[in-house]
Amino acid sequence: MDRSGRSLRHAVVVHLQDLATPAAVIDHDVLARNCRVMADRMTALGVRLRPHVKTHKCVEIARLQVAGHDAGVTVSTLAEARAMAAGGIRDVTWAVPVPHPRIGEAVALHRALAATGGRLQLLVDHRATVEAIDAEAVRQDTVVPVFIKVDCGYARAGVDPNGAALTSLAIRIEASAGLALRGVLTHGGHSYDVAGRDALLRVAGEERDAVVHAANRLRIASVACAEVSLGSTPTMAVAEDLRECTEARPGNYALFDVFQARIGSCALSDVALSVLVSVMGVYPERGQLLVDGGALAFSKDPGATHVLDGGFGVVRDLEGRDLPLKLVGLSQEHGKMKAVGDSGWLQGVELGTKLRVLPNHACLVTALHPELVVVRGQEVIDRWVPVRGW
Amino acid sequence: MDRSGRSLRHAVVVHLQDLATPAAVIDHDVLARNCRVMADRMTALGVRLRPHVKTHKCVEIARLQVAGHDAGVTVSTLAEARAMAAGGIRDVTWAVPVPHPRIGEAVALHRALAATGGRLQLLVDHRATVEAIDAEAVRQDTVVPVFIKVDCGYARAGVDPNGAALTSLAIRIEASAGLALRGVLTHGGHSYDVAGRDALLRVAGEERDAVVHAANRLRIASVACAEVSLGSTPTMAVAEDLRECTEARPGNYALFDVFQARIGSCALSDVALSVLVSVMGVYPERGQLLVDGGALAFSKDPGATHVLDGGFGVVRDLEGRDLPLKLVGLSQEHGKMKAVGDSGWLQGVELGTKLRVLPNHACLVTALHPELVVVRGQEVIDRWVPVRGW
Repeated sequence: MDRSGRSLRHAVVVHLQDLATPAAVIDHDVLARNCRVMADRMTALGVRLRPHVKTHKCVEIARLQVAGHDAGVTVSTLAEARAMAAGGIRDVTWAVPVPHPRIGEAVALHRALAATGGRLQLLVDHRATVEAIDAEAVRQDTVVPVFIKVDCGYARAGVDPNGAALTSLAIRIEASAGLALRGVLTHGGHSYDVAGRDALLRVAGEERDAVVHAANRLRIASVACAEVSLGSTPTMAVAEDLRECTEARPGNYALFDVFQARIGSCALSDVALSVLVSVMGVYPERGQLLVDGGALAFSKDPGATHVLDGGFGVVRDLEGRDLPLKLVGLSQEHGKMKAVGDSGWLQGVELGTKLRVLPNHACLVTALHPELVVVRGQEVIDRWVPVRGW
Repeated sequence: MDRSGRSLRHAVVVHLQDLATPAAVIDHDVLARNCRVMADRMTALGVRLRPHVKTHKCVEIARLQVAGHDAGVTVSTLAEARAMAAGGIRDVTWAVPVPHPRIGEAVALHRALAATGGRLQLLVDHRATVEAIDAEAVRQDTVVPVFIKVDCGYARAGVDPNGAALTSLAIRIEASAGLALRGVLTHGGHSYDVAGRDALLRVAGEERDAVVHAANRLRIASVACAEVSLGSTPTMAVAEDLRECTEARPGNYALFDVFQARIGSCALSDVALSVLVSVMGVYPERGQLLVDGGALAFSKDPGATHVLDGGFGVVRDLEGRDLPLKLVGLSQEHGKMKAVGDSGWLQGVELGTKLRVLPNHACLVTALHPELVVVRGQEVIDRWVPVRGW
């Protein structure tokens, strides 16, 4: 639609073939299906879905993710929180331990959201952070909802679910004037280090057990713990039992990627993101093609190297057929592809031919592109702009 | 200076300590020294410097790079070419083989630049590309300057300096109405696969020999070849003999990075770029710190793994002192640091403490940050905005 509301559909139809490259392309129907499947899955397992939006940083995708649930989201930066709020999604959890220099901003954003019924929920796993947020909340005359971050085995952030810090933090929060304890929260990020349904189920079990155990320890200590929050895409894609949990926070599943397919979170047909590139060099004598997408179009994430060294993505033609090509090297704006097996056919590849590559890691790809081009089939239907920075 | 020309120096002095994190920080004096040293080095070796600007994509740095030379630059994208032109640098070489779908835009940009004495020089290594640019140049009523790309052993793009394609391409260009052959051009990117002065000198020799040989073959075939262009930062940092070459195109040297220091292009004290982060978690029980810079602040380039697995950077305090910490893991917005050796001292690290990390690969870091914060000592003196996209 243009600004006057008239449909431009018949006036300007842009196809993949006509797009400038490199471009990040999202298949709308696959995206919508991924969002629906996860939303239904979480409903069936009895938890609310509070999807993470860091994978795409677009309010348009966040709206698809929250459909059928409570319209709350999870973010990784204050910039994402502000973008979601500007887009009308005003119930936000910032799922990193708050860096102290950002406490003033975070409390101010919560205060602004709370004025119209929204909130910014923060994570804490240190007493000094609890005290600093409390002091700032009192200074700004507000009450900030917080979660205690629990480590379920990922060993990145969070307190030991069996340790003394968990209860002492909770009691300190309960005693504060500026904080309201919402509950406990964990992230089974070590699901990315394994592969296969059985291994993912094991990590999903560790994730659930750790956060439920933490919640129960608080209750035994007579601390109210309303929320029991968990989730990563791999664990939520396979989990069969989320009893005693209240919300799940997967995010990558909206787009998925080759990494997720390799470890068993999805099929390759569920990957909604691809990078469109053009062939800019054909070198049959060394079995190579050169394309105009490099490290700034794909990132240099090597993918699931513990499962398979698949190069930097899965190479297809515009019709979605797999090609016997491996994206073996990325320099800044060059992608080097090698023929797998016989390479005689490369002689017939025309310069300018467009290819679609399913990338290893969606979250890092979308962050590199100024816009995400949305297609249905091969027709462009929208363009979304991710927020950047922090 | 503010817009009225008054100095704001005494009104608002921002220090590193006060910056929001993560932030990409450039040490102005180190940058200026790097630019001067390379400019002088190329003058001493008798070639013009046509610096690559892809590492930073900022016209402010490009101006420092071209000082003392002919004010021409090299770019990796049309977006960079446009940004340079907008900033007054109008003699540009686009150093990738032109992707066919962008030929119309590229020729139009050359035509616009040529109207005021500038130019956009293009690279070719396929006959079909020569024919397509020629046809478009004729259509747009202009003459486009082109270089033949020669492969000196990197095996990314370019024709064999000993092959028949080199001369046949040149003869085809000479016969065209829309193209002017400028000369031959190569890039010894395989310098990034080796380490140490001797190995870099060997690659520098291969790079020079290949492009000089190609130029001489053209002259023997009675084709004029004015320009003999070469260069990568590692080879230009060590080369002792560039006779018969006319211009050099290194770029990374303006900022350098840990990768360049590890392979021997520079010392760590020459690295002008760092990523400023804040400590957001202290976990002495597992010897870890968590900082608020992750894969979107550092990229996931693993660095010079053929030399040393140094993690994702070199960790320092704000005074520039090395700390016994290794940046071992990057998720999207989390950086995980491990103490090297004894970890008891981590107990004394305050949350919110700021650290400076010299990154593995400057080109990928600057592309992730909305702005580059320029400091002299610890004082912010400017903020530069890199161009994005293609």
